Amino acid sequence: MAFALPPGSTIGILGGGQLGRMLALAAARLGLDVAILTPDEDSPASRVAKTTFVAPYDDPDALAALAKVSDVVTFEFENVPARVVEILAGLGAVVAPGAKALAVAQDRVDEKSFINSVGVSTVGFEGVNSAIECEEAVARIGVPALLKTRRDGYDGKGQRWIRDAKDAAAAFEALGAPCILEAPAPFVRELSVVAARGRDGAVAAFPLGENHHENGVLRRTLAPAAVSPETEEAAQDIAGCILEGLDYVGVLAVELFELENGDLLVNEIAPRVHNTGHWTQDGCLTDQFEQHIRAVAGWPLGPTTALARTEMTNLLGSEVDAWTLLAGEPGVCIHLYGKRHAAPGRKMGHVNRLTSL
Amino acid sequence: MAFALPPGSTIGILGGGQLGRMLALAAARLGLDVAILTPDEDSPASRVAKTTFVAPYDDPDALAALAKVSDVVTFEFENVPARVVEILAGLGAVVAPGAKALAVAQDRVDEKSFINSVGVSTVGFEGVNSAIECEEAVARIGVPALLKTRRDGYDGKGQRWIRDAKDAAAAFEALGAPCILEAPAPFVRELSVVAARGRDGAVAAFPLGENHHENGVLRRTLAPAAVSPETEEAAQDIAGCILEGLDYVGVLAVELFELENGDLLVNEIAPRVHNTGHWTQDGCLTDQFEQHIRAVAGWPLGPTTALARTEMTNLLGSEVDAWTLLAGEPGVCIHLYGKRHAAPGRKMGHVNRLTSL
Repeated sequence: MAFALPPGSTIGILGGGQLGRMLALAAARLGLDVAILTPDEDSPASRVAKTTFVAPYDDPDALAALAKVSDVVTFEFENVPARVVEILAGLGAVVAPGAKALAVAQDRVDEKSFINSVGVSTVGFEGVNSAIECEEAVARIGVPALLKTRRDGYDGKGQRWIRDAKDAAAAFEALGAPCILEAPAPFVRELSVVAARGRDGAVAAFPLGENHHENGVLRRTLAPAAVSPETEEAAQDIAGCILEGLDYVGVLAVELFELENGDLLVNEIAPRVHNTGHWTQDGCLTDQFEQHIRAVAGWPLGPTTALARTEMTNLLGSEVDAWTLLAGEPGVCIHLYGKRHAAPGRKMGHVNRLTSL
Repeated sequence: MAFALPPGSTIGILGGGQLGRMLALAAARLGLDVAILTPDEDSPASRVAKTTFVAPYDDPDALAALAKVSDVVTFEFENVPARVVEILAGLGAVVAPGAKALAVAQDRVDEKSFINSVGVSTVGFEGVNSAIECEEAVARIGVPALLKTRRDGYDGKGQRWIRDAKDAAAAFEALGAPCILEAPAPFVRELSVVAARGRDGAVAAFPLGENHHENGVLRRTLAPAAVSPETEEAAQDIAGCILEGLDYVGVLAVELFELENGDLLVNEIAPRVHNTGHWTQDGCLTDQFEQHIRAVAGWPLGPTTALARTEMTNLLGSEVDAWTLLAGEPGVCIHLYGKRHAAPGRKMGHVNRLTSL
């Protein structure tokens, strides 16, 4: 093992949202301190962290301060500017996951190209940099096809369907940025596998989750998903290839399309803890947050077996107002993020409903 | 329900040790903020709390500041000076558990008298305030008998066995404080029941733990303890009588002696979360820390059923140095307290080893 940070060490985290908060709580259980860098004056994560630096993510002074107190730096989101990773590297900070994983995850063309390069299938795709290229790509891929910005979209934002070839140029102009055109996936189910790779190269995958989205936002994950042993193994192999290919350290999520014939295509990867892994907090002995901290701190990975069948449901916007009812429901574990305002659709918390395996 | 504190409310906690830390982590999961009052500049709890006031516990300004930011105030230890509870009451703070529970738990004679008054058995005892009274009490109770200070002892400190009547006076002089003389309990096993009472009067007990001490300090708890349904029910009844009798809100631990005939005697009570309840963190859906926060915040109590058989082992002093081995042991959940120095015998963390029920 390259290094194992002893209790009392500090994990630096870029980002102060719910993922940073749950990472901080997991680190605390292991006797580790946390330092948060966030532009938010009153972030969910900072309220459970030893130290917070309030500054833009690319503020050199704040990054220097974070690097100084941190034994390893990680992040709760993948859109960390490349400049930030460079600054941290220049300061000699250990950053996990590394620059390659971030670069790949930030660009949908690079992401799918990388995934194919390690022998894993995705939907068909083409990078398009102009309205003309978009028309040409639509001519090759056919309609319907999904046009997405190469960078920065999430939860269904920054994308549109092209259902008629004559709309291709207009769709590109509407998004107004370099794009990827994707062939539709004739999937029957959306699955995900959350897996970790330790500093020693050990890989451990949690059981698959079956995901249900509404309006582009995750609504529910059922886990362990009812899949064949072959599908489980195929998904774990996919995660393993990606983790190895990126020389990855930490937790990574792979969103999968399950086709009618049982084949799996990778939809996208997230180089971080992931909403579809929240069920592990109550359904597994080690959860994804502790697993990520273990990995980046150089600790051995924890076991990933499921202890219970778990249904994770996101609490969006004012749904969180039902907290008192939910807290009283037997077999429900409630997790709230401490966000001050419940804007419509905002992720305010989640519940895990457990039943015996 | 008298009140239920919404997410975003603040729980004030007196004490910055591991119990305060684990209470703070539980509060965070429920979307609640935490403010700590501790005399320690760098306490385990403060590193996961939104706000910390560093001051002596009876500092009126610090108590006023704590009361101002807190929607309810609780504590991690029972030896809260009566003066502190008075100051908080004078400030209009809601304190849970209340003054009666603290008063009873701080004085071993008052404690056993109260327990007997609610129809629950203890060992025989007498309060002794002088060497002469000690000799007289020994004459009535017989030898061996256990002499303890009425107040402030813990983990085997402030007590000595009297094995010969002629040593009675000297034993009293050695302790040098008002004492309680206790008849020995011919117990076959030490058990404990950790139970909670909500603001609405609902009571919920966790399954019993079987406790093993070494040198007066808890070493291991096995839970759920292998006891008859009658013993389980008797222990839950005892906890219920005590909780009702104290008009208690929060988690309370009852240490029990199991006699050869199956009868239970109460050894002592702790009006707080308790080391013998740490197994619930991984063995139950709701753990004792979340249960305490739920109770004092006026939330419904969570379910107390065990999900797994759990062996909790304390990591004392340098035993914590085995963290990397322990973290790699399958089926082990490791909890470290973030204490900076591992003095001999100091509680540095614990592990829960889980097996299927």
